[in-house]
Amino acid sequence: MSNLERLYSNRASKMRKSVIRELLKITQDPEILSFAGGLPNPKSFPIDDLEGVIQDVLRQHGKTALQYGTTQGLFELRKAIAERACKDGIKTTDENIIIFSGSQQALDTVGKMFLNPGDTALVGLPSYLGGINAFRSYESNLTGIPLDQDGMRLDILEETIKKFLKNEILPKFIYIIPTFQNPAGVVMPELRRKKLIDIANEYDLLIVEDDPYSKIRFDVPRVKPIKAFDDEGHVIYMSTFSKILSPGFRLAWTVASDELTRRMEICKQALDLCTNTFTQFIASEFMRRGSLDLHIMKICEMYEPKRDIMMSSMKKYFPKGYVCHKPKGGMFAWVTLPKGIDTETMFLDAIKEKVAYVHGKAFCVDGSCGRSMRLNFSYSTDEQIDEGMKRLGGVIEKNLKNRSSSHSVNI
Amino acid sequence: MSNLERLYSNRASKMRKSVIRELLKITQDPEILSFAGGLPNPKSFPIDDLEGVIQDVLRQHGKTALQYGTTQGLFELRKAIAERACKDGIKTTDENIIIFSGSQQALDTVGKMFLNPGDTALVGLPSYLGGINAFRSYESNLTGIPLDQDGMRLDILEETIKKFLKNEILPKFIYIIPTFQNPAGVVMPELRRKKLIDIANEYDLLIVEDDPYSKIRFDVPRVKPIKAFDDEGHVIYMSTFSKILSPGFRLAWTVASDELTRRMEICKQALDLCTNTFTQFIASEFMRRGSLDLHIMKICEMYEPKRDIMMSSMKKYFPKGYVCHKPKGGMFAWVTLPKGIDTETMFLDAIKEKVAYVHGKAFCVDGSCGRSMRLNFSYSTDEQIDEGMKRLGGVIEKNLKNRSSSHSVNI
Repeated sequence: MSNLERLYSNRASKMRKSVIRELLKITQDPEILSFAGGLPNPKSFPIDDLEGVIQDVLRQHGKTALQYGTTQGLFELRKAIAERACKDGIKTTDENIIIFSGSQQALDTVGKMFLNPGDTALVGLPSYLGGINAFRSYESNLTGIPLDQDGMRLDILEETIKKFLKNEILPKFIYIIPTFQNPAGVVMPELRRKKLIDIANEYDLLIVEDDPYSKIRFDVPRVKPIKAFDDEGHVIYMSTFSKILSPGFRLAWTVASDELTRRMEICKQALDLCTNTFTQFIASEFMRRGSLDLHIMKICEMYEPKRDIMMSSMKKYFPKGYVCHKPKGGMFAWVTLPKGIDTETMFLDAIKEKVAYVHGKAFCVDGSCGRSMRLNFSYSTDEQIDEGMKRLGGVIEKNLKNRSSSHSVNI
Repeated sequence: MSNLERLYSNRASKMRKSVIRELLKITQDPEILSFAGGLPNPKSFPIDDLEGVIQDVLRQHGKTALQYGTTQGLFELRKAIAERACKDGIKTTDENIIIFSGSQQALDTVGKMFLNPGDTALVGLPSYLGGINAFRSYESNLTGIPLDQDGMRLDILEETIKKFLKNEILPKFIYIIPTFQNPAGVVMPELRRKKLIDIANEYDLLIVEDDPYSKIRFDVPRVKPIKAFDDEGHVIYMSTFSKILSPGFRLAWTVASDELTRRMEICKQALDLCTNTFTQFIASEFMRRGSLDLHIMKICEMYEPKRDIMMSSMKKYFPKGYVCHKPKGGMFAWVTLPKGIDTETMFLDAIKEKVAYVHGKAFCVDGSCGRSMRLNFSYSTDEQIDEGMKRLGGVIEKNLKNRSSSHSVNI
């Protein structure tokens, strides 16, 4: 009898399926209105523009665009990204940029580069599930730092760092999504960003700044990335084309110091040799034509009313007592329901009513946020959002009633 | 003073740059005739066909082709691959196939899934450098098994396995490139493949079969993949579109048992969520049109005369005493030079003469093959191959003379 499981590494034995990926499978049922995935709206894809772009790429660069590329990534693309980063206040050149196969690969690289089994890293409570999964796949211990309406609580962060250092535990990095945080939607103000850099400098620690959403901004002034205040090279910044062009292209990038960039490049060599050359050329040509900024404007114009519909439909259909701060950008609303509700168990009722979300616990390394859920507003049509909130309102109402009746029984 | 190096994981501290990647950088000097990389010929890329294919993909599937896909990969592509695998004698369906971002990612996944620090895996002497790099990045110990003209020596393999098991060391897998081996070019005959499966079954071990080249076949009958004889699920088979369509698309696949496929899928979720959806759709449509087999024929017709030119130019220009068995397929010639030559030190002379190769030691986990080198014949033009062999012949001649003169000094 074959027993290949005895061959698995310790990390493989511990790997669990991603909750979101599994949910996405359930929600492939076309009758379900899904607010679970972090998917851009398919209508936003610039298909017509891309047809011309790709024709040019094939005719002018076909022989290089279909060939292997360097591990660091296409020079023209890195140059264009560096110029945009400079406009955001990040002082960098193409040499400090690596093109990754999506931010998830950059997160995996961070995990591989820094985490020994048993090592500690700090993440938000709540935080992006893909980051948690990548870091856990290297058998690390993740400690959660609570957020408030201005993002990660730095008083608790510093306290936690001090406590760890006192016990001779070195936190390997602080993983943070400062702008339109996934899932909580909050934005860390500039002052707190500077304070965070002070902490990183003081304790000589690494910050991993994940910034997929800052360009999808509705009614809030621009805030500079944390990396813009990083004079000592303590920040690995990452962003992606997934939300502003196409997730199917699997293109993201990092900005980091010379030494960290060199080391990440070596790590990526063993991961996949190089990122997709063809889609790198496409993104590069799309930017060269000046189409990216126009396209981002179009996306913002498309998503802002969807956000508004979701907020007003919740108001219309949800029973009172829920809390949802209007997200000022990004793709998600974070809803916290009255006490007694468990969004994980409620999910089964929601599926029965053909509506889906991601439950809060999935984002919390300590299993908190059990009353919360993340709702995506970018993917669905306006009508689907209204109908979805109606269905969800019904599910919540029923759960609240069950809660009271079970309460009466208990009393 | 910042010292982020103290944050690195043990595996990151040990990571070294890939020799081949670094060589490729040197050889970007356009004056150097490089036979170093494993690059397809850019003239082989079906640019005109792809223009039509991509137009159809965008117009008919734009909204899904630019969106996130499932981790396992595009159903239509997996189905087409499964059908082709069946023709090669591998009994499989789409469910046992995963689409990876190049074979390198599949190799990294194998490393992540099976290798704890200090674990042992068995590889050919010589073996593919990218595999060695991926496995070493998980701090494993690689033991080399010598090859003969029929591939890996199974008597030594079995002896080695027995020795390890006696010492309570469990070899995690046997990594093997059975057809047009990289770099040695040899083909393992069917009888030896069956014997290898017998060994895997007897000791309940895993075989990782890497098969990028079997379709690039000139004058030798087809041999079934090892996977075709694998009735008990001991083989993870992998192949790629890099050599038969475009390496820039970063598309490869694995065929494995239900359990191994499920586990590799979980592992890949944390690596990059999903493989490039857009190029998956392109490859799928290219195959649907029946273009792939025609294209492979074209590649074989293009590479066979290049192989012949390389063989005859070596004969013309190389000093006597070298050994190179004519490769019957694939993309590489493996040359062993007379005693006293070190191809690693000779490389600097070669670069001075504007010609490049990969030295043999790079492929050997025990540092052997110091007199050998790998020459790629697919990338260069016919004229470049002839001129390159001429330059290389001169370099070898000079080195042989130096050797004799240094010998005389020593005597």
